[in-house]
Amino acid sequence: MPPAKPLMVFWYEFASTYSYLAAHRVERLAAAAGVDVAWRPFLLGPIFGAQGWTTSPFNIYPAKGRNMWRDMERLCADEGLKLVHPTIFPQNGIMAARLALVGAEDGWIADFSKAVYTANFAEGADISAAETLARLLGDLGLEAGAILARAQTQPIKDRLRTNTEAAIAAGVYGAPAFTVGDELFWGNDRLENALAWATRT
Amino acid sequence: MPPAKPLMVFWYEFASTYSYLAAHRVERLAAAAGVDVAWRPFLLGPIFGAQGWTTSPFNIYPAKGRNMWRDMERLCADEGLKLVHPTIFPQNGIMAARLALVGAEDGWIADFSKAVYTANFAEGADISAAETLARLLGDLGLEAGAILARAQTQPIKDRLRTNTEAAIAAGVYGAPAFTVGDELFWGNDRLENALAWATRT
Repeated sequence: MPPAKPLMVFWYEFASTYSYLAAHRVERLAAAAGVDVAWRPFLLGPIFGAQGWTTSPFNIYPAKGRNMWRDMERLCADEGLKLVHPTIFPQNGIMAARLALVGAEDGWIADFSKAVYTANFAEGADISAAETLARLLGDLGLEAGAILARAQTQPIKDRLRTNTEAAIAAGVYGAPAFTVGDELFWGNDRLENALAWATRT
Repeated sequence: MPPAKPLMVFWYEFASTYSYLAAHRVERLAAAAGVDVAWRPFLLGPIFGAQGWTTSPFNIYPAKGRNMWRDMERLCADEGLKLVHPTIFPQNGIMAARLALVGAEDGWIADFSKAVYTANFAEGADISAAETLARLLGDLGLEAGAILARAQTQPIKDRLRTNTEAAIAAGVYGAPAFTVGDELFWGNDRLENALAWATRT
């Protein structure tokens, strides 16, 4: 039996711009580093709300928001990823997150999560709409109806709540974030650092 | 005559932790890229104040602050820079910034600015104290008394105010920041990106 690979937890929220980049980079970089990735969706809403924010800080602070979009344009161009400015920002990702947790049980969480980010930030689709999510599931060859129903069950709802509580307990205050044991790394910029930490000797 | 090098403006505030890293990286990386650097100190206080903040966001949001200090520990270790948690954070850097602007006239702004950051974040010295600043000037072989007096003159005070207004006009909302023409890059993490932008063909 080969030795177990080190594990990195990837914390993400579907409304988060920089998580779009991280979601499309994490598998390639983690594979190259020899690190396993646990995809863990959570909700930023309760975390931001506890800080008194009712929307994204990128909306609250216009100069910061303008530069974030410009920065995303540059980084997505470097990464070969399309970017549109969604009409609604931030989008409500709660249903997508619950579906991702069904995917965690069934083994398609990574592909589905990447598809949701692409829908949000490359297509400008409404990722809170059941039709959009059903289409994404169908594109993965999955039976959307049954999965949408499972996503509304209490165990899945509880799991998303638990993930968000675990994120807060781990010190997460924004997305994406990465943890290796107790070590927290914040932001797409720290993906490489988190992987290096996971494989340090 | 060799062709003029591209220019990158380095916007920094002496209270800023990540500017400590940037100040100690910018000369080496800019030289390697063939880019000239304009060191431009400014004050974050008026910018934060306009957003309703009376202290650093790292103090306002404790989870963010805790991770910033841990992140700084990791990054400073990678960079071979010492780091202490200053007793006072953020420190008042207005006098240091005015002195740096005297240094911009006389050609020692980079060395002095690095020394102020080292005093603040590697030594935990009080960089608002005239004695500290006089020591740093003396260490550079400069006559502290005359320079401290020049730093209190109206043209220098006006220049710092103008720098801060220019930072706001350039869209700067945090430190460090880098501009290449109209292109704004925020954060120590974007130093390499700004240099690449400056030399793109």
